[in-house]
This record gives sequence, structure tokens and C-alpha cells, in this order.
Amino acid sequence: MQNSAAICDFPPEKRALLHEILERVADKWTLLVIEALEGERELRFSDLQRRVGSVSHKMLTKTLRQLERDGLVTRRVHAAVPPRVDYSLTPLGESLGESVCGICTWVGKHIAKVQRARRTYDGKSDPF
Amino acid sequence: MQNSAAICDFPPEKRALLHEILERVADKWTLLVIEALEGERELRFSDLQRRVGSVSHKMLTKTLRQLERDGLVTRRVHAAVPPRVDYSLTPLGESLGESVCGICTWVGKHIAKVQRARRTYDGKSDPF
Repeated sequence: MQNSAAICDFPPEKRALLHEILERVADKWTLLVIEALEGERELRFSDLQRRVGSVSHKMLTKTLRQLERDGLVTRRVHAAVPPRVDYSLTPLGESLGESVCGICTWVGKHIAKVQRARRTYDGKSDPF
Repeated sequence: MQNSAAICDFPPEKRALLHEILERVADKWTLLVIEALEGERELRFSDLQRRVGSVSHKMLTKTLRQLERDGLVTRRVHAAVPPRVDYSLTPLGESLGESVCGICTWVGKHIAKVQRARRTYDGKSDPF
């Protein structure tokens, strides 16, 4: 398959980043932050925290820092009292969100097959 | 963005599976096993182990079991002495491989931007 050759031909440095990016997007908070920011011009930290829901201040800060470091999120500090910080997706962040959707679409389309396969497998493995 | 709405609209049970599938494909061994099986009709356990390289017997067994349980890999036992076991991708497994390629393509296309963003970020964060 031509598509798969694209994975195989990855040189080591790209392969390492591929795994890192996959691990990053597999992280619950990363995906929820990208989702919350999608379609918004920008969001304050407190708005993001409310939208993502049940995320701790520390975990949201860590997630945003990683996204900012990768060039996926922009952090803008406003000179106000108290200081206001807004976050937004960069075009790079938006494009990653779209790529992740390929897997979302796959899950949406094939969820019943995976669940059926699991039931069959677990049924076979049951000790009778 | 329309694509992103697809993530947001996921009901909880699909969202859980999405995270699980993302975590699964983020796993180094899963991706390497899918790659090794792509384009092959079937492979023996020992051939798979050689192709994946540096994977332990235990870890390869665990990875293959998970893939089989999800309906992504087929395990075929041949009545031979010693018994021979062959593995192959199911059509579902092949289609997941193709979806993962969306992220591979993204990494291939944007790796330089992510690396540049990191250098800039790390430079800014340096204590002077």
C-alpha cells in the first residue's frame, strides 16, 4: 500500500517526532484543549479551564506550554490589571486538529466493528 | 471548522474509544507491527519479531493480542509440527493504518515548523 510506505520510509528523526505527536494527541487534555480552541478567535485561561472541564490549573498550564512550544498554540499577554492571558490555535495547530480527524472519522465509522470484534474475542477467551 | 465539529460531537462512548485507539496507535510496537504486516499476505511470529526488531517475545505477544481483540489482526494456527502461527492485517487493520497516515503526512509536512517553534520557545525560556 502506498500510504503505508510513507510510514516505513520515515527516517529516525521523523519517526521519533511521529510517536511524540501521536502520544501528544492521544493525551486527553491536549485533544480537549485543541477542541475548545477550535472555531474560537481566542480564549482566556479561565474560559479554557471551564470548557475543558475537570482539568486542574497545573495540568492545563502544562498542556498549554507543550502546545505553545510545538507552535500549535499562541499565548498573548494583555497589559491589564489583573493581567489577562489569551490563547488561540495557530494555523499549524488547526491543521493538526484536521489530521487527527482522520482517526476520529475512522473511529466513528468502525466503532461497531471494533466492539463486535472485542465481544467475539472475549467470548472465545471466556473459561467455560 | 467542520472537521473539528466531528470531534466535539462525539458521544462519550465513542470519545473513550477514540482516546483508546489514539493511545494504541501512539504505542511504538503497535505501529511497527501494523507497518510490518502491511503489504504482506501473512507473517509468522518469528518473522514479525525479526522485522519489528528489539521487541521482546512477551511484548509482541501482548501487542498482537490487543490487535486481534480489536479485529485489526487475524491469527491463524497451522496444524504442523512444531505448530506454526501466522498473522495478517484484516481489512479493518489496513484502513486504520491508512487513517494513521494522515498524521504521518502532517508530521512529514510540518516537522520543520515544529522544530523551529521548539527552538524559538526554548531560546526564549533560556535563563540569561
